[in-house]
Formats: sequence, C-alpha cells, structure tokens
Amino acid sequence: MPAVAAVDWGTTRLRAWLLGAGGAVLAERRGDDGLITAREAGFAAVLDGHLAAMGAPAGLPVIMCGMVGSRQGWIEAPYVDVPADIGAILQGAARIEGTARDIRIVPGLAQRLADAPDVMRGEETQLAGAGLPAKGRHIVCMPGTHSKWVEVEDGAVAGFGTWPTGELFSVLAAHSILRHSLGERPAPVLPGDADFRRRCEAALAEGGDFASRLFSIRAAGLLHGQTPEQAAADLSGLLIGAEIASARRRYGMAAGTVTLVASGALGRLYEAALGLAGLQVRPVDADEAVRAGLMAAARHNGMIAQGAPA
Amino acid sequence: MPAVAAVDWGTTRLRAWLLGAGGAVLAERRGDDGLITAREAGFAAVLDGHLAAMGAPAGLPVIMCGMVGSRQGWIEAPYVDVPADIGAILQGAARIEGTARDIRIVPGLAQRLADAPDVMRGEETQLAGAGLPAKGRHIVCMPGTHSKWVEVEDGAVAGFGTWPTGELFSVLAAHSILRHSLGERPAPVLPGDADFRRRCEAALAEGGDFASRLFSIRAAGLLHGQTPEQAAADLSGLLIGAEIASARRRYGMAAGTVTLVASGALGRLYEAALGLAGLQVRPVDADEAVRAGLMAAARHNGMIAQGAPA
Repeated sequence: MPAVAAVDWGTTRLRAWLLGAGGAVLAERRGDDGLITAREAGFAAVLDGHLAAMGAPAGLPVIMCGMVGSRQGWIEAPYVDVPADIGAILQGAARIEGTARDIRIVPGLAQRLADAPDVMRGEETQLAGAGLPAKGRHIVCMPGTHSKWVEVEDGAVAGFGTWPTGELFSVLAAHSILRHSLGERPAPVLPGDADFRRRCEAALAEGGDFASRLFSIRAAGLLHGQTPEQAAADLSGLLIGAEIASARRRYGMAAGTVTLVASGALGRLYEAALGLAGLQVRPVDADEAVRAGLMAAARHNGMIAQGAPA
Repeated sequence: MPAVAAVDWGTTRLRAWLLGAGGAVLAERRGDDGLITAREAGFAAVLDGHLAAMGAPAGLPVIMCGMVGSRQGWIEAPYVDVPADIGAILQGAARIEGTARDIRIVPGLAQRLADAPDVMRGEETQLAGAGLPAKGRHIVCMPGTHSKWVEVEDGAVAGFGTWPTGELFSVLAAHSILRHSLGERPAPVLPGDADFRRRCEAALAEGGDFASRLFSIRAAGLLHGQTPEQAAADLSGLLIGAEIASARRRYGMAAGTVTLVASGALGRLYEAALGLAGLQVRPVDADEAVRAGLMAAARHNGMIAQGAPA
C-alpha cells in the first residue's frame, strides 16, 4: 500500500512515484508536462492524470517539490531564507487549498545577500535526501542546467550558489559561433575523453575563467581540423572545469570531499572533473535523493504517521 | 581626387570610403550587406554598387579587410602566422583575379598554438592603423562581438586572444534565463551606471570568473525587484570586467597603458572598465584606425605610388 505520492515537478518535466511507508518505489511516472504544459492544461488535471495512471488510492496525500511551487507554478510556496536548518525547510511545505487530497509543496530557498542573491526550488529536497551526516561541514554539488553548490554546516544550509553550466553549454552550442564547431546535434561527451579532460584541466588551472578559451574551440576547427565531437568535449570540459574551479574558490576547498548528487552521464562527467580537481567524491543518486527528501518532507509535515511501519 | 577605395567588409556589415592620397575621407558608405548578403547577391555586384554610389573613377584600386577574405568570403586571403611584423602582414594582400580594377584583401592572422589557437580578420588592419610607437611592448584592446587583445612588440604581433564578450551578452540576453531579467530589448548601458561599475569591479576582483554571478542577475530580480535596466547594466559590467581581468592576467598587466581601439558607446564602456581596473587608456577611434590601416596596406602593396602627395 502506498503511503504517499511524491512528485518532482520542474519547468520542463515531471517525475512522480508512489512510495511505501518505508520509501519503497511502488509505481513511477515520468512526463514532459512540466510547468509550461501544466499552466495550459491545469495543474490539478495533469497531476490527477499521473496519479490515476499509477493507480493511486483516492485519499493518498501528495508531496511535491520544484518549480511547481514558484510564482509561475500551481501556488507560490514562499522561500525559506538561508541560513536554515534542513529539517525546518521541509517542515514548511505549503498546502494547496480546495483540493480533496492533502497536497503540499516543499518551499524553495532564498539567499538574500546584496552581492550574491540566489534562489533554488527542488534542490533543497534532494539535499534533504542526500544522507548527509548530521554534523560537520559538507559541500554538495548538484549539477544540471543550473548547477547548485551548497554549503551545509551541522545540518543547516549555510549558503549556496548557482552556476548555469548546462544552460551555457546548450545556449552556446545552439546560438553562438560555436554552433559551426559543434554541429546541429552536439555529440555526447564521455568522461574518459582526452579533449574533455585536457580542457577541464586548463579551466581548473585558470580559476573559472573560460571566456578566453571559447573562441579557441572555433579556431581549433579552422586551424587544426578539430572535429565536432572534439569541439563538444572541449566545450563541456571547459565549462565543467570552470564551474568546479569557481565553486572550490568560493567555498575554500583546496582538497576534501564533495557530495555529488547526480544521475547518469552527467554525473560521470562531474565525477571525472572533480577527480581532475583533486577532490574526493561521495556520489549520491539524484533520483533516490529527491524521493528520500520528499518522503522526509511528508513525515515532517505529518502527512504520514511518524510511527508508520518502515 | 581619390587615390584608393578602402573597404572593411565583415560578416554582417560593410563600410567603404574613397580616400585621398593623404588619407582624407572624400566619400563614405555604410551598408548591412555583409558576407551573408553578398554571398547571394555576388561580391562584385555589391562592391560595384557601393563604388558607383560614391562616384569612384573606373580604374580606382580597392583595398579591403575583414571576413571578405575568409573561406566564406570573396576569396580566401591566406592567414599570416604570428609572430609577424605588422608591415609584413599588410604587404601580403591577396589579389582578386579577373576583375578590371586592382582589388586586394589584407590577410588575417593565425596563432597556431596547440593550447591557444586563434584567428582574426580585420582587426590586424585596425592594429596597423592604430599609430602604435615603432618600439616597445604595447597591449591593444579591440572590443566587439569577439573582442581581440593583441600583444605588440617592436612593431610585430607577438600574440593575441579572443574574448567573445559581445556575443556572450547578446546570446545570454536573448536565449538564456536572463532574457526574463533583461526584457525583449535590453536597455543601453552607460559607463557611469552604478550597477555597471559595481559588477565590473566584482568581475575584476574574481579574475574573469563570471559564470558564478550570472544567475544572481536573475535572482536579484526575483528577490530585490531589480529592473531590466539594472539587469542589462549588471550583465554588461560583469562580462566586460571579466574580459579585462582575464586579458590582463594573460598579458601580465598589473598596471600600465592599454591602447583601446573602439568607437562610440562601446568604447566609453571599455574606457570606464579599464579605468576601474587601474589601467591607463590610450584611445584610438576604430574607424580612423581601419582607414589608416587600409591606406597603409594600399601603399605597402604598391596600389598608390609611394611618393604620392600626402
């Protein structure tokens, strides 16, 4: 019997699970009906469709995270300001009124610094499910379109930053002069690729300055006959290396361990790049982390009896 | 009487002048018929149209520079490899065969370094016309879509680099999440703007790492109600500051003078940013520089009698 439905609802996609009281995955759905689609079709209708497809019982509570809680989402779940205890963040889930089910959205985080304002929605839930030790200082990297790096101290978010590495890659590949170098459909990049590693090391050495090397990808095609596959590896290595160099400077990491919350091919690229930076990696599967975080949020908000069998 | 027609022919635009033997501007044309248009209409037809509109005599020689000499241009004027003497670069203009007039194109420059391959076409001619002293080391900044920085030693190009600052601005403003922050038509940025200066100083202090600050422009809108005008000033200051920080590191400029070859509003922004970086500026008008460079190329190639009255 499912204890809760858990939904990670972002701008362009949705993932939903039915979870048992112990966190077991009883059903799963993935859809492209992110915010943009849902704003037209109606959030309730989209959610009901996925719940029905998974055979969710009528009264099953639903815990959600992600951009569904933004101003452009279903309802705005107000930001929690950092520094903030991770448990307290989860506890503040915003309830959607006027629905038969108990449906709540985990709040996002806001960093209201004059010189480094920042926001996140969804990653706070992954963070809560990443299994960080309750004590000590931990640096967490969550790569993606807008990579987030989070500094956690004794179970509280001390601060965070955003590096739009995935967006830079796709925007430069599609709309800059590098589109001539990478071609229409950039080739997938592998973590063992020599070009990826070379560019990554160069960007690490240059402290996050990558703009000075972008045009050399174009020039390498003109002068050295570099292939589109090499150009994609170059751009990926350059941007990921620059992100890591920049974040390690901000968080003062000469060495040490980074908790990497990621999945699939992107996770392997970051694992390789963090290794080139001389950092240790504690890998956490992003899907498992978001489910664990949503489960914890459901418990923190009393949506599942705290004593329910695990 | 004009001694030569001078043409700066780039990817998206063309500028043409009739020049007297002493360099006086006798006629001027500006058109949007850059390479993309000219490849359809025919290079000869486009050029003839502009020459006729300026009343150029039938036998007037034409000296050109820019992307018209690239593989996608009229003919490919082979690159000159750096290091190279500026006079020698000009001397190697490529002649277009089968035309009634004497029409030549100044070659571009290639830097065939394994870790910093680079190319330029057009800026070498501006450089030749920038009035640099014959002796000593000079750093030249030529801002634009693809800003070029050139290291000149005793009248020779020792090396150069490209920072695609203008392209980054327009691509991020149009295609990244920052489009929500900057709006459909980014506001013009002024060199005295407080946001421009603040972001520029931050980027200078961070050594060219700007990716870590991009998303904060978006967040400043969400959290602090920052306006689109401020967002445009932020992005401009951040990117220009990062370019200068990066270039000064590459060329080892703790202090000293930069020769800034630029025009109009962009030139004033770079002048302000170089000032914030603690660098002295020797401003050179880009239009005057390219005309002077083309004039020098015409003389070096014997298209104007060396003894013609100035």
